[in-house]
Amino acid sequence: MKRNIGIVGYGYWGPNLARNFASHPECVVKRIAEVDPNQRAKAEMSWPHSEVVAHASQILTAPDIDIAVIATPVSTHFELTMTALRHGKHVWVEKPVAATSDEARRIADEAAKRRLTVITDHTFLFTGPVMKMKEIVESGEMGSLLYYDSVRVNLGMFQHDVNVLWDLATHDLAIINYLVKDRPTTVSAIGSSHFNSHIDVGYLTLWYNDNFIAHFHANWLSPVKIRRTLVGGAQRMLVWDDGEREEKIKIYDKGVKVFNREGVYQMLATYRVGDMRSPLLSTGEALAREVGYFIDCIDHGRSPHNDALAGMRVVEILEAADRSLALNSAPVELP
Amino acid sequence: MKRNIGIVGYGYWGPNLARNFASHPECVVKRIAEVDPNQRAKAEMSWPHSEVVAHASQILTAPDIDIAVIATPVSTHFELTMTALRHGKHVWVEKPVAATSDEARRIADEAAKRRLTVITDHTFLFTGPVMKMKEIVESGEMGSLLYYDSVRVNLGMFQHDVNVLWDLATHDLAIINYLVKDRPTTVSAIGSSHFNSHIDVGYLTLWYNDNFIAHFHANWLSPVKIRRTLVGGAQRMLVWDDGEREEKIKIYDKGVKVFNREGVYQMLATYRVGDMRSPLLSTGEALAREVGYFIDCIDHGRSPHNDALAGMRVVEILEAADRSLALNSAPVELP
Amino acid sequence: MKRNIGIVGYGYWGPNLARNFASHPECVVKRIAEVDPNQRAKAEMSWPHSEVVAHASQILTAPDIDIAVIATPVSTHFELTMTALRHGKHVWVEKPVAATSDEARRIADEAAKRRLTVITDHTFLFTGPVMKMKEIVESGEMGSLLYYDSVRVNLGMFQHDVNVLWDLATHDLAIINYLVKDRPTTVSAIGSSHFNSHIDVGYLTLWYNDNFIAHFHANWLSPVKIRRTLVGGAQRMLVWDDGEREEKIKIYDKGVKVFNREGVYQMLATYRVGDMRSPLLSTGEALAREVGYFIDCIDHGRSPHNDALAGMRVVEILEAADRSLALNSAPVELP
Amino acid sequence: MKRNIGIVGYGYWGPNLARNFASHPECVVKRIAEVDPNQRAKAEMSWPHSEVVAHASQILTAPDIDIAVIATPVSTHFELTMTALRHGKHVWVEKPVAATSDEARRIADEAAKRRLTVITDHTFLFTGPVMKMKEIVESGEMGSLLYYDSVRVNLGMFQHDVNVLWDLATHDLAIINYLVKDRPTTVSAIGSSHFNSHIDVGYLTLWYNDNFIAHFHANWLSPVKIRRTLVGGAQRMLVWDDGEREEKIKIYDKGVKVFNREGVYQMLATYRVGDMRSPLLSTGEALAREVGYFIDCIDHGRSPHNDALAGMRVVEILEAADRSLALNSAPVELP
Repeated sequence: MKRNIGIVGYGYWGPNLARNFASHPECVVKRIAEVDPNQRAKAEMSWPHSEVVAHASQILTAPDIDIAVIATPVSTHFELTMTALRHGKHVWVEKPVAATSDEARRIADEAAKRRLTVITDHTFLFTGPVMKMKEIVESGEMGSLLYYDSVRVNLGMFQHDVNVLWDLATHDLAIINYLVKDRPTTVSAIGSSHFNSHIDVGYLTLWYNDNFIAHFHANWLSPVKIRRTLVGGAQRMLVWDDGEREEKIKIYDKGVKVFNREGVYQMLATYRVGDMRSPLLSTGEALAREVGYFIDCIDHGRSPHNDALAGMRVVEILEAADRSLALNSAPVELP
Repeated sequence: MKRNIGIVGYGYWGPNLARNFASHPECVVKRIAEVDPNQRAKAEMSWPHSEVVAHASQILTAPDIDIAVIATPVSTHFELTMTALRHGKHVWVEKPVAATSDEARRIADEAAKRRLTVITDHTFLFTGPVMKMKEIVESGEMGSLLYYDSVRVNLGMFQHDVNVLWDLATHDLAIINYLVKDRPTTVSAIGSSHFNSHIDVGYLTLWYNDNFIAHFHANWLSPVKIRRTLVGGAQRMLVWDDGEREEKIKIYDKGVKVFNREGVYQMLATYRVGDMRSPLLSTGEALAREVGYFIDCIDHGRSPHNDALAGMRVVEILEAADRSLALNSAPVELP
Repeated sequence: MKRNIGIVGYGYWGPNLARNFASHPECVVKRIAEVDPNQRAKAEMSWPHSEVVAHASQILTAPDIDIAVIATPVSTHFELTMTALRHGKHVWVEKPVAATSDEARRIADEAAKRRLTVITDHTFLFTGPVMKMKEIVESGEMGSLLYYDSVRVNLGMFQHDVNVLWDLATHDLAIINYLVKDRPTTVSAIGSSHFNSHIDVGYLTLWYNDNFIAHFHANWLSPVKIRRTLVGGAQRMLVWDDGEREEKIKIYDKGVKVFNREGVYQMLATYRVGDMRSPLLSTGEALAREVGYFIDCIDHGRSPHNDALAGMRVVEILEAADRSLALNSAPVELP
Repeated sequence: MKRNIGIVGYGYWGPNLARNFASHPECVVKRIAEVDPNQRAKAEMSWPHSEVVAHASQILTAPDIDIAVIATPVSTHFELTMTALRHGKHVWVEKPVAATSDEARRIADEAAKRRLTVITDHTFLFTGPVMKMKEIVESGEMGSLLYYDSVRVNLGMFQHDVNVLWDLATHDLAIINYLVKDRPTTVSAIGSSHFNSHIDVGYLTLWYNDNFIAHFHANWLSPVKIRRTLVGGAQRMLVWDDGEREEKIKIYDKGVKVFNREGVYQMLATYRVGDMRSPLLSTGEALAREVGYFIDCIDHGRSPHNDALAGMRVVEILEAADRSLALNSAPVELP
């Protein structure tokens, strides 16, 4: 017996969602809801065996739908997701999970109460490089983490409704929350806006306990596209350069050896260098992997690691960043 | 009639200074002062025709010395430079010009009063890439500047007496002060320390008027060496990648076009892309060029662009950064 | 009145052809012929408004088809193309145009006789980098050409029916024939086979008049993917690196200045270096551009630059390369 | 008791030789011979404790010299080396060991007869990357070698007395002879000359038994500097990119798996891909290492791997390449 999928929103990302759910052996794309008639026509063309409708409610409240996939503007996420949950559906919701952390928490509570599964679509967590980084960090081979530095810059894609941190850094926040067990205690944000009221060049810092620090550079005004993350550990260091065609992850057997010399007050530090290794990464489409994981979570009644609470923790940081920006970059404590 | 040079300090940088002053057609390296007997022996071996002495005063107060070159630890810069000035000598002093901005200002005042020339050795300003950037920025072809972003990271060189910003970002501060006419109004610094009391991962931000912002990442714990600066202008954008063997400077004919669409409240921005150009850069040793410039300034009674006041403006920013670090990264206004 | 397109062969490349012809405003994909039932089912799924048939003749001899697109194995090209021409159809044929240069010539003759248009699908000629190189070479700014050196290597894609030169170097031969007006006079080929009877590492050399030389490295056993071409001119030199994400074409203002020094028998050569420039390249799909060009040629009764004779000249070189391989790499003259 | 070194020739490379022999704890640079008075003056300046003389014979026949270092034009190598050997001296001779393979053989014979040590200065064999490649190839981890492909190109350095193969490919020939135990059986060379009678763009091929093939591209007219070698093995593949600042050697766990499918005549090949590893390389000056090795060989009466016969085998290949060029690139068998 296959699960009936209803997709709400057939804009930029909708076609990818439809294709990947349709390819899953346990799923049928039963219905697609889209308000825009042009986009609806496209959906009809591509999915002759699905029903294409105009109203979200034809999915969210319909008894024949098992899973609702929400790919609409963020301001609607809360309302649509809650309706779906109240009608007993599991929900896949695009990131950010909701417009505020409060909404996100209420989604999480509703899902828990009804024993339904909600997943926040943080697709990056299912890419080869991030999966490999998770494996490396979890193995402990890097030693204690010292810092995390991410650069995600390019020319383009002003969004009129969000600033550059909500647009670009959100990916990296989902990633660091996935990789690192500890939660940040404090957030600060720095930025500058040049072409409208939202910042288009932004820097975000997260402070953790034990001197671990994370810093994110997001920029819509860079002439070159850079996606590079450095992760420093006491035993190993790692570079994820997503701009590389191959060898996106490099693990350096480099570190710092600290020792106390007799009669010397200050610690002495020397460097240790060894081989570099670039591991083979999983290929295949990240979104297909995430759909498979979601269905598997539903099958086994498990909560996904990127559930509504995980989505909420990203939104909490972005909200704190907005507060820091409003306070002239003063650090802001996280709840 | 050649000028007699006296070099105070023959440590890491001293041999390069001796070699470059010795190569200048108007200079003679008359005397070298060095307290350490081993280093003194090296100086004697390499410079058989110069006098090698133990005490700085044998240069600073000697009537036969025209120019004193101070290459000693920063804590001694003020005392040695002032003594040299009081004895009528022009002074070349290593960066940072002094340990505090107050000392730097007093050096500048003394030099002005006595009509002597002081140069702060910011060697980077005489490299091919920085000279070319200066030319490009001055030409106005970039349009108004939007942001400046610098990354200078590598594994290594803990200095026990300064933090990573004083060690690495100082280069970039001298450069941005040289390139940009405006002065920053506010500074903030973020950092983390892992192996001693000084931060080894640091981020520095400068705010300017007109939404221009500059940000610097300095890091002693990076597994890879990166030296890359992005400069965004309204008309052109520039990348300086000092890790490239050639093509260190790339100028992108890229920008943002902003227009108002009738009846639309928000500005609309679109991107403009064109060719990239990597200009031929001056080759040759930067230090030789700087020595030539210094002698030329003395000959013509001109103050170098990297005089004691220029050195002071770098120290002012680093002092403000230290204050910001002490205030948990709160922004600090510059004098 | 739209032109009716019939596509013969719906294997690897067929879907791309169907999509691009379908997108052309003057074309309708009327019919698709495919012998394999599985592939036929895929065609039916994707093209509900086209007829999907089993036999090529249902296209080649059908009165309602204006243009036949031949995307079948090379051994069938001659037969299918000749049948289409004899039934009055214009023909798009995949590369290589035919299995032998003799077949190719007969196709060209038949097309000329019937005033029909045949195009050989050398898609690379319609990519941004090759179009830009054509423009640069034609402008004369490079001065006389000195050499052409191409490397096209990767791990993979053993083809059991052809050697690595027919698989990979064929692209570069189409390109050099397009860029350079002169024809090579002599060919030699060097190679080695390790896993079946065909060479999997190959080197091909073309000799031209005036000391211009072209050399091609094709390799199925390289651990890294390299696609890089150097073109040396007397005034400018060019690098096409297709592995770059951007800046695929770089033009160097570098050259050699030769002069005779009085009383010196040998010529003296010095180097001239200047800026590098990376021009903006056309984006968009090369195949779409080629389809547009083909229809335009038909509309205006012009022969495409990549017509059957152009296809023949590539096959001639590959045939000569095979003879050279059989003769232990001895150079072989071209007809 | 230290060994007395006499250096014959103080041109481009002589200063490096003097410095590295002087730094060896068992050596004293006793005497330097140089015909040019200007160069002699430089030697006197730099080496106040050595004797600087005008005639090679003052070293080659002097009883107080233990080791003669020959750094003169290649046409003089034979005569000078033979004189030194006849006077009982060990000899270090720059590459190529002699102008002809016949001369090289007679040097080797003379050294063997007199039980003296001759080393050919193939400095590259003592660099970190080549030492690591030797270790990897010898370990057998690469499986049987399939091909070797080297590119060594840049703009510049026309030499009026030799062609580009003698200038650039000679390095790679010394390297491949060092790495690979088998000897090539056949040589062919292809080239083109544009500015004088010697070729400035050259391709050299070596054939070995068992389908192993080596190919070398040497070019004085490339706008970019490339030094890249691919080595394909059945189990592992290797890239040496000397243009990288770090990670010059990368070892790919990639290969080809061949199997026979029942009832299928042709072999089927599939690809195997795994991690990449970039090993830590020895740092330090290659020439210092080579001097140490040479002295060690003398101490223990061992013949260096880069002895006169090794030098001869490089010259043999270059001679065969010249014959191939004269025969319009026909393959030429090696003795």
